[in-house]
Amino acid sequence: MYTLYGSPSTAGTAIHWMLLELGVPFELKLLDFDKGEHKTPEYLALNPDGVVPTLIVDGAPVTQMASLATLLAERHPEAGFAPPLGSPERAQYLSWTLWLANSFQPHFRAWFYPHEPAGGEAQEAVQAAARARIEAGLARLDAHLAGRDYIVGDRFTSMDLLATILCRWSRNMPKPATEWPNLKRYLDRIRQRPALREVHAREGLTDWIDG
Amino acid sequence: MYTLYGSPSTAGTAIHWMLLELGVPFELKLLDFDKGEHKTPEYLALNPDGVVPTLIVDGAPVTQMASLATLLAERHPEAGFAPPLGSPERAQYLSWTLWLANSFQPHFRAWFYPHEPAGGEAQEAVQAAARARIEAGLARLDAHLAGRDYIVGDRFTSMDLLATILCRWSRNMPKPATEWPNLKRYLDRIRQRPALREVHAREGLTDWIDG
Repeated sequence: MYTLYGSPSTAGTAIHWMLLELGVPFELKLLDFDKGEHKTPEYLALNPDGVVPTLIVDGAPVTQMASLATLLAERHPEAGFAPPLGSPERAQYLSWTLWLANSFQPHFRAWFYPHEPAGGEAQEAVQAAARARIEAGLARLDAHLAGRDYIVGDRFTSMDLLATILCRWSRNMPKPATEWPNLKRYLDRIRQRPALREVHAREGLTDWIDG
Repeated sequence: MYTLYGSPSTAGTAIHWMLLELGVPFELKLLDFDKGEHKTPEYLALNPDGVVPTLIVDGAPVTQMASLATLLAERHPEAGFAPPLGSPERAQYLSWTLWLANSFQPHFRAWFYPHEPAGGEAQEAVQAAARARIEAGLARLDAHLAGRDYIVGDRFTSMDLLATILCRWSRNMPKPATEWPNLKRYLDRIRQRPALREVHAREGLTDWIDG
C-alpha cells in the first residue's frame, strides 16, 4: 500500500498516473496549494522542498517525480515499465530520464514561476528564455521520435510517462508539444492509455486529453 | 572498454572519477572548450546538448552525469556503489540522485552561466537567486549529514560522488560547501579517496582537494 501526496495537474499527476498504470493499491492525499497545504510543517517534514509528489514507500517518504517513476518501475517489474538491468536499452532509459529531469523540466519551472530565477523585473526575459529552451527540447524529442513509437526500445516505459507529463505542461504555451508532428503522433497514442484517461477524470482535468 | 569525453573540472570529472573508482579500462578524450571542441558537428552527433560527459557504452553514446554515475554503478555491482534493487536504501538512493540532478545542479548552471536564464541585464539578479538556492541546498545536505558518514545507508554510493562534485563546484562561491560543519566532515573523508585524488592529478586540478 502506497500513500501519494499530490495535487491536481502537477508533477504529482505523473505518479498518480503511474500508480493507476501499475494497478497497485494506494491512498491519495490531494493537497490544496491555494490553502498552502504543501507548506505546512507536517508536509515539509515529509518533503523539505514543499513540492509534490511525495510517496510513502514502506513507511518512509520518497520525493522527486522522476525518482518515483523509476522506483515504481523497478518495484513492479512485471509491468515492464523499465528495461531490466543489463539490457541494451538500460543506458538510454537512464540517460533520457535524467535529461528530462536535469535539462528539460527545470525550464518549465522557470516558465511557470518566472520570478524565481532573477526577481520580478526579469519575468518576461525569463519566460522568453524558458520558452526557447522548452521548444528546443521539444524539437529534440520530436526528431528522436521520427519512425519510433516510444522513446527507448519498442515499448512504453516510465520515462515516456515523464515525457508525456512534461509535454502536457506545454499545452497552454505559444507552441505546445502537439504542434510537432512526431510528438503529436506519439502523444495521441499515449493519450489513449486508459490509466492516463482515468487520472484526468480523477483529478478533474478536462483539457488536453482529447487533443 | 569505455570511452569518456570530458573536460577538466567539469561534469565530466565526475565520470572520470567514477571510472577510476571502478578500476575499469577506459579511453579519455579531453575536449578543449576554449577551442569549441564540444560544439563541433562530430561531437554534437554524440551529445546534442554540446556538454560533457558523454560515455561510449557498448558502442553507443550515453549522456547526463547523473545517469552515467547510476548506470556505471549498475554495470559494476561488485563495487557496491548502488543499493541493489529491492533493498531498503534503494528509494532514498534514487530520490537523492534525482534531487541533485533536478533541484540542485541547475542552480549551478545559473551561477556559472548567469546570462542564460534572462539575458545579460539580469546576470547579477540571477547569480543572487542561484546563490541563495545553492546555499539552501547545501544547508539541506548538511542537516541530513548530521551523525551520518554518507548520504544513503552506511557506505559510499554513486550519489555521494555526484554530491561531492557539486559541492566542489561551490568552492569559489561566497559560502562554499566546506563552510558547513557536517558537509566539511563528509567532504574531508571523501577527499581522502585515492580515485578522487587521482582524478585531480590527471586533470591537473590543484585546488580544493586538500581543503
